[in-house]
Amino acid sequence: MYESRIRMPALHDKVMSAADAALLIEDGMTVGMSGFTRAGEAKAVPLALVERAREQPLKISLLTGASLGNDLDKHLTEAGVLARRMPFQVDATLRKAINQGEVMFIDQHLSDTVEQMRNHQLKLPDIAVIEAVAITEEGHIVPTTSVGNSASFAIFAKQVVVEINLAHNPNLEGLHDIYIPTYRPTRTPIPLVSPGQRMGSTAIPIDPAKIAAIVITNQPDSYSTVTPPDAETQGIADHLIAFFEKEVEAGRLPKNLGPLQAGIGSIANAVMCGFINSSFEDLVMYSEVLQDCTFELIDAGKMTLASGCSITLSGRCNERVFGNLEKYKDKLVMRTQEMSNHPEIVRRLGIIGINTALEFDIYGNVNSTHVGGTKMMNGIGGSGDFARNANLAIFVTKSIAKGGAISSVVPMVSHVDHTEHDVDILVTEQGLADLRGLAPRERARVVIDNCVHPDYRDALNDYFERACAKGGHTPHLLREAVEWHLNLEEFGHMRAAG
Amino acid sequence: MYESRIRMPALHDKVMSAADAALLIEDGMTVGMSGFTRAGEAKAVPLALVERAREQPLKISLLTGASLGNDLDKHLTEAGVLARRMPFQVDATLRKAINQGEVMFIDQHLSDTVEQMRNHQLKLPDIAVIEAVAITEEGHIVPTTSVGNSASFAIFAKQVVVEINLAHNPNLEGLHDIYIPTYRPTRTPIPLVSPGQRMGSTAIPIDPAKIAAIVITNQPDSYSTVTPPDAETQGIADHLIAFFEKEVEAGRLPKNLGPLQAGIGSIANAVMCGFINSSFEDLVMYSEVLQDCTFELIDAGKMTLASGCSITLSGRCNERVFGNLEKYKDKLVMRTQEMSNHPEIVRRLGIIGINTALEFDIYGNVNSTHVGGTKMMNGIGGSGDFARNANLAIFVTKSIAKGGAISSVVPMVSHVDHTEHDVDILVTEQGLADLRGLAPRERARVVIDNCVHPDYRDALNDYFERACAKGGHTPHLLREAVEWHLNLEEFGHMRAAG
Repeated sequence: MYESRIRMPALHDKVMSAADAALLIEDGMTVGMSGFTRAGEAKAVPLALVERAREQPLKISLLTGASLGNDLDKHLTEAGVLARRMPFQVDATLRKAINQGEVMFIDQHLSDTVEQMRNHQLKLPDIAVIEAVAITEEGHIVPTTSVGNSASFAIFAKQVVVEINLAHNPNLEGLHDIYIPTYRPTRTPIPLVSPGQRMGSTAIPIDPAKIAAIVITNQPDSYSTVTPPDAETQGIADHLIAFFEKEVEAGRLPKNLGPLQAGIGSIANAVMCGFINSSFEDLVMYSEVLQDCTFELIDAGKMTLASGCSITLSGRCNERVFGNLEKYKDKLVMRTQEMSNHPEIVRRLGIIGINTALEFDIYGNVNSTHVGGTKMMNGIGGSGDFARNANLAIFVTKSIAKGGAISSVVPMVSHVDHTEHDVDILVTEQGLADLRGLAPRERARVVIDNCVHPDYRDALNDYFERACAKGGHTPHLLREAVEWHLNLEEFGHMRAAG
Repeated sequence: MYESRIRMPALHDKVMSAADAALLIEDGMTVGMSGFTRAGEAKAVPLALVERAREQPLKISLLTGASLGNDLDKHLTEAGVLARRMPFQVDATLRKAINQGEVMFIDQHLSDTVEQMRNHQLKLPDIAVIEAVAITEEGHIVPTTSVGNSASFAIFAKQVVVEINLAHNPNLEGLHDIYIPTYRPTRTPIPLVSPGQRMGSTAIPIDPAKIAAIVITNQPDSYSTVTPPDAETQGIADHLIAFFEKEVEAGRLPKNLGPLQAGIGSIANAVMCGFINSSFEDLVMYSEVLQDCTFELIDAGKMTLASGCSITLSGRCNERVFGNLEKYKDKLVMRTQEMSNHPEIVRRLGIIGINTALEFDIYGNVNSTHVGGTKMMNGIGGSGDFARNANLAIFVTKSIAKGGAISSVVPMVSHVDHTEHDVDILVTEQGLADLRGLAPRERARVVIDNCVHPDYRDALNDYFERACAKGGHTPHLLREAVEWHLNLEEFGHMRAAG
C-alpha cells in the first residue's frame, strides 16, 4: 500500500509503529516538528510520545512552524511533555500553562526561527518529525499541507522521523518550493522577483541515511475554525475596499493592488472575502496561510495566484480544494515560512499586509499578543515579518469586544508588538484611519475620529485633550492610561471606574 | 574659483546668492535637504530662509537624512519655518517645539522615508537643497560628507538647489556609491553581497535642467559632540568584547565577527573604541554613521573597511581624516541611507547592530526615544532598521542616569521602539544579558542579574517576584510599573515613593 509513497526502496525497512519511532525522542531533546496553523503536523508520533510520558515522564523543547491541529498541543501539555515551546501556538490548554509559567514559550517572528538556528543562536533540533505525502527516489521528503519550518528542521536534525499520511492527496507533490538560503558570509540575494516564481526543489533534500523511522498514518488535518463574515467584519472589508479603490485612483497602488497577505483567523479571512464582490481583478496573494478566502477568490475568477507556507481550510472548503487539487495546482506555490515571510521579499514585492490586532492605541501602536499586558493569547506569528516591510501595513479589529466591555482602541496598549513606526492603516467596522506621514497628535485625531466605537469616543477624546494639555510628542497620562486595562481586570469593564 | 567644482559650463549661470536661491522655496512647500548626523547639510539656503522668514513668515515641511549641524534646526525653529519635520533630529530647541506640539515631527525608520516617497505615501519634495563638492560634466551632483536621502530627494524634486561647499576636500569625489532601487513590480534584488561592494554611481544622476540654483559656500560641518570613553562605557565595551570572544570560540561568530554597525553617540563610539585593544582583526563596518572610532580602528590596523551614509567626526579627528583622505579612501564607501540601513542587506550580511537604549525593561523591550513615555528625545533613527534584521541586535546603556535618580532598567518601558522579539543582547556597565532563545520570565532573570545597578536590584527583584505570583506569560503589575516613570516626573527620582 505505502510502497508507492516511499519511492526509495532501501527505506522500506524503516517503517515502524509510532510508539517505536517515538522511542527515538529522549528526555531533554529539542524536537522540530512539521505543522503550521493546524495543517500538516506530524500526527502519530506526538501522540505516542504523550502515551509514553504517562508511564515514563519526559520533557522536550518542541519547535514547529506555527500552531498544531488535532489538539496535539493540548495533549502534549496535559502529559507534561513540553518544557519549552516555540515559535507560536493557539491551544487553550497550552496557553494556560504558558501563562502560569509552566511552559517556557518563546514568541518569535515566524521568519526568524530557522535563521537563528542556522547561526547557532537557537539549539539545533536533535530530531525532526515531518509529515509527508511521499519520500522520493532520492530519499527526499515531500511535505503535505504545510511547509513551515519542516525543511530546515530536517536539514539541521541528526535524525528524521517521517510520517507518511495516506489521508493527504498524493497530488500535493509538486506544489512545494523548498529554497534554503546559503550561509553567511557568502549568502546571495534571494532570487524571487515575482510571487509565483519557483526557486528551489519540490522536496526537502536531506541525506536519506538520516531517516531513522517512517510511520504510516491516515488522519486528516483539523479543519480551520474560521467563522463566516458578520456585520462587523463586512464593515471592515467595505472600508478597506473603498480605501483600495481610492488608492488605485490616486495612482498609489497598481490596479491589482500588488501581492496581498492576510493573517490567520476569521477577521482577516472575512476581509479577504470582501474582494469577491469588489471590482478588483487579477489579485495575487503572497501570504503565510492560505485560508478559505483564497480559494473562494480563485473560484470567483478574482485571484490568479497564491503563494503561502500552509493551506488551512474549513470543513466546507476542504473537499472542494483537496478533492480537486489539479484545478488549483498551477495557481499555488507552497514555500518555507522563512521565504513566505522573508523581510527581503516582503519589501521587494511591496506586499499589502492585513493582520488582526488584539488592540491598538490612539497613536497607532498595536498589541497582537498580550491580554492586559501580561497574558499571552497566541503569539506574534508573521504579523511583524509583514508589517515592518510591507508596502502598506494594515491592522484590523472590531472596535469593541465582550459586548462592549472592551474597547479595542485604548489610550495606550498594554503591550506593544508593532510600534507606530510600522503601522500605516488601522480599520474597525467604524472606519479607517490612514496614518501615513502623520505625527502622533495627528494620528490620535484620525484614529479617534474614524476607528473608535461611539461608546468610547468621548472618553478617548477627553483623554487625548487632557494629555495634550500636559504636553509631549506623544501625549499621555500614564496613570490613567493603565487604568483602562486594570478596570477590565478588576471590574470586568474598561470604563467601570470612569 | 568654483568653475572646477561646476564641471558643466552651462550651469555656471545658475550661481546666485543664498538669498536668491531661497526665494525658490515658497510657503507650504515640502523641502528635502541633505544632511545626516551633522554632516553634509546644506548650510546657506536654510539660513537665508530663516532671514527671509523674519520679514515674511513662511512654513515648510522639512525632510533631511537625519540631524543637521550648525544649529540649523534651532534657527529654523526659532524663525517659525518648520510646520513638519522628518525623519530625525537632535536639536534642543526643535525638541522643545516638538514636545509642545508646535512642530509636527514624524519619527521614522531611516531606511523608510524615500521608499514611502517612491510609493507616493509621503508627499514628494517640491524642491531639494543638496550640499555638494562638485557638479560633474553630466550635471550630476557629488555629495559631501553624507549621502543620507539626498539622492532620492534630488531625483524626486521638481527643482534642485546645489550648495557647492568649498570647505570640503574635493577628493571626497569617488567615495560615494549611489544605488537607487527600481520601481515595483519589477524591482530586482539589491546586488550587494559584501560590505565594500559598489553598485551604483559616484554622483547623483539627475537631469541638470532641474538645477535651478547653485550657491557657493565655504563653511565646515559641525564637529561631532561625542565624548571620550569613561569608566562605564569602558565597562560596557569590556563586557561586549568578552562576549564576542566567547561567541567566536563557540563557532557562532566568524573570527572578524562579521559586519558591525554602531549607532550615533558617545556610548556606541566608546564601545567600538574598545576593539582597539582587543584581539580582533580585520574588522569591517556596515553602518549608518562613521564616527571617530571607525578611523581609530583603521589607524590601529584593526579595521579594513567601513561603509556608511555619513562621516561625523570630532574636532580632534576631523583634520586627521579629511586632511588625509587619500589614506582612507580605498577603505571607505558612502551609500544612501536607504542602502546603509536596508533590511534586505542587514539580514543578508548578518550585521551585528550595536545601538543605544534610553531605557529597557526586564523583558527586553527597548525605549530609544521617549522620556517618560511622552517627551521625544531625538528619534528612532536607524536602530530599528538594524535591530530587526541583525544577526545580533545589541542595545547598550549605562545602568543609571542623573546620579542614580533614573534606573535605565525598569519593570516596563514607558514607550516601546524595539519589542522583545527584536532584542538579543542587553549590556550595561554592570554586565551583559544574553536573551537569545529565552522566554520572558527567563529574560527577566538574566536582565536583573546582569544589567541592573545594585541600587535598583532589590526593587526589580521584588517587582518581578510579585508579578510572577500574579501570573501571565509576561508578568506585570501595571499600576506599579508606571509609578517608576511617574515618580521620576513628580518627585525627580524613580524610587521616591518606593
